[in-house]
Amino acid sequence: MRILGIDPGLQTTGFGVVDVNGAALTYVASGTITTTHLSRGDLPARLKVLFDGIAEVKARYQPDVAAVEIVFVNVNPQATLLLGQARGACVTALVSCDLPVAEYTALQMKRAVAGHGQAAKAQVQEMVKRLLKLPGLPGKDAADALGLAITHAHAGASMARIATAVDATRKTTGMYRAGRTH
Amino acid sequence: MRILGIDPGLQTTGFGVVDVNGAALTYVASGTITTTHLSRGDLPARLKVLFDGIAEVKARYQPDVAAVEIVFVNVNPQATLLLGQARGACVTALVSCDLPVAEYTALQMKRAVAGHGQAAKAQVQEMVKRLLKLPGLPGKDAADALGLAITHAHAGASMARIATAVDATRKTTGMYRAGRTH
Repeated sequence: MRILGIDPGLQTTGFGVVDVNGAALTYVASGTITTTHLSRGDLPARLKVLFDGIAEVKARYQPDVAAVEIVFVNVNPQATLLLGQARGACVTALVSCDLPVAEYTALQMKRAVAGHGQAAKAQVQEMVKRLLKLPGLPGKDAADALGLAITHAHAGASMARIATAVDATRKTTGMYRAGRTH
Repeated sequence: MRILGIDPGLQTTGFGVVDVNGAALTYVASGTITTTHLSRGDLPARLKVLFDGIAEVKARYQPDVAAVEIVFVNVNPQATLLLGQARGACVTALVSCDLPVAEYTALQMKRAVAGHGQAAKAQVQEMVKRLLKLPGLPGKDAADALGLAITHAHAGASMARIATAVDATRKTTGMYRAGRTH
């Protein structure tokens, strides 16, 4: 079972790929997709970079399932709206090709990786390094993404449930409803 | 020039297709994509319905450009986050196949369609019906989407600018940056 973890962000989205074989975890790849080279105002272009970047990671590493962080509202409502759109692009990139998507909060990830929900970023990096036997510390965004993949590996038992829940999502008859009225 | 207007929403996303030939506007199609048949908690599945629905509309009507409403923060931050994700899925469906995306606020749309930014939903529906010579009132979500397409038709002069700005969006070298560090 190969898990793709995604830590969504408009400027930087982290990704991490982990193989699970029973209790054994094997690091495959990790990194970030960044939109900082684009004009801040060109949101469609930035969302396209996230979508294309995740599609490329997915095509390259062929994961069986994705684990995406559940984002929370920011004190700044405009930032919340932008983060929401970034996450929408990321999740869409995953589900558009029928990859099952599991969702975890940062709290769940920190508990799974560091043993407690108040773990600092640096602790998550350190624990991800240990759990995956990495030669060095992963970057913060990549560490969070790898942490999400590890969280899903630990969730184990619920995997089958999530995978089946994502099947049969679409009722095409719901389309063009208003279109028929005029 | 064929314009696809999109009024994004997590429960109901409106779409409207309008042909522009000089000053003449011709109605092509409109309708809604709804996710209300899905479990509210299964956000990935709902985003997939929006993505697939827009992809289907795009494939069927082959628009040259899309006009998407710029959404605003809600009094409820959680609703803002959900609307953001819905809009992210919609915009992603458009840009993933390189369709240029123009963005307009509801205020701009109401001004273009009804002459003033405080127009009520019913006024937008009535004006869209008149401008496109429809036999009946379009539904509210479809009317907003058609209004966005009309707004973009009126924006005319700025079209070329928008279309070129959406080209060359992606710098592939930005990928896997952190991935190289370990």
